[in-house]
Amino acid sequence: MPTMKPGCLLGIGVGPGDPELLTLKAVRLLQEAPAIAFVAADGRPSLARHIAARYIPPHKREINIALPLDPQPQLAEAAHNEGASRIAAELELGHDVALLCEGDPLFHGSFVQFFGRLGQRYRSIVVPGILALNSATAAARLPLVWRTNPLAVLSAALPAVLLKNRLAASDAAAVLDIGWHVRKLKTVLAELDLLDRAIYVERPSTADERVMLLTDVATAAAPHPAVVLIPARR
Amino acid sequence: MPTMKPGCLLGIGVGPGDPELLTLKAVRLLQEAPAIAFVAADGRPSLARHIAARYIPPHKREINIALPLDPQPQLAEAAHNEGASRIAAELELGHDVALLCEGDPLFHGSFVQFFGRLGQRYRSIVVPGILALNSATAAARLPLVWRTNPLAVLSAALPAVLLKNRLAASDAAAVLDIGWHVRKLKTVLAELDLLDRAIYVERPSTADERVMLLTDVATAAAPHPAVVLIPARR
Repeated sequence: MPTMKPGCLLGIGVGPGDPELLTLKAVRLLQEAPAIAFVAADGRPSLARHIAARYIPPHKREINIALPLDPQPQLAEAAHNEGASRIAAELELGHDVALLCEGDPLFHGSFVQFFGRLGQRYRSIVVPGILALNSATAAARLPLVWRTNPLAVLSAALPAVLLKNRLAASDAAAVLDIGWHVRKLKTVLAELDLLDRAIYVERPSTADERVMLLTDVATAAAPHPAVVLIPARR
Repeated sequence: MPTMKPGCLLGIGVGPGDPELLTLKAVRLLQEAPAIAFVAADGRPSLARHIAARYIPPHKREINIALPLDPQPQLAEAAHNEGASRIAAELELGHDVALLCEGDPLFHGSFVQFFGRLGQRYRSIVVPGILALNSATAAARLPLVWRTNPLAVLSAALPAVLLKNRLAASDAAAVLDIGWHVRKLKTVLAELDLLDRAIYVERPSTADERVMLLTDVATAAAPHPAVVLIPARR
């Protein structure tokens, strides 16, 4: 019996939300691949699949990997292991698998979980995607940096003290993972006298996009994705 | 006589080099616009135009803005003023102008120069593009950060002392604008005991792409674009 050549794991960045912000390469590879895969919070639709939906041919094999809403690390670990096994089974049949990832596969995404489990055994290709952060600056028409200004890219989930240190040490910043951290972020920025300059961008590039001063954000929790931009002083 | 509605200034990110890494939106808008514009170092071909070349219809009106190689600020200022006037003349005719930008228009690009001069008078749209930095992580299959690790995005043109401070203060970093700063960057990273982990990526996504340890880079000057990645410790 001839040896089957295993398939290739394709990490496909689908960008921040607008289906027109996929790259031509992302669209071509996800259409050519015999199977697609994506993660979704248990019982909810997958945002990455939703963004790419118009490019997915009917009857494509789909591997829907449900991640538990429960934040227990063991449960997430088990779900990623099981998802990796399902992807591996497809790769063993000689089929490429296109793993759809919000934004960029290697930037704050779940691709690294699967790449970590499969990257040594199988070939892989990563197609970079547009970051929510870049889409947010485009929505706000706001350059974050000028020439050599350092830029800090921070998670709002950092403890307040760390967040404050990092923000104080950089000329400009983009803060991601806003979620339930709106109040903490406002407090830290106010202490640094940066709150008046912080721009909040919600769901950039989609029909629900909103751009406003962070100080005017009334809710305690931001939808996903949302980004706070603190541009450098010119 | 009816009042002419002025055209729209379109900042189009064309990504890091591979023509397939343009977004569908970038391709559509640059093809629909009656005119395109791009900058080029005096007498040299424009990299942004080169990346997008296959999508540019014949007989499209092209505004080629030559920037002086001489680094004197007054000369660059005059060249940007003149380029903005030529774009404005086209906008006044009611024609949209698609300004092609390497990477992302608002990230270390010349778009901000023209947007600064024209953004108050004319409508504008910015189409985000793939960053060389994301394309470099894709080439190296290297996630820079895990969960909440801060990321510093730095210019190699910073003075050595500043570069060292910022690198020391961050879990992970991407260093851009490598150019003639290879030796300085190596020295600073060696002092911080980070040199062995620094990955050098040259011309990501192109046929000339090279991925190697920075310590193995023998030349004093890197071609454009080149990125040095320092991933967070897991």
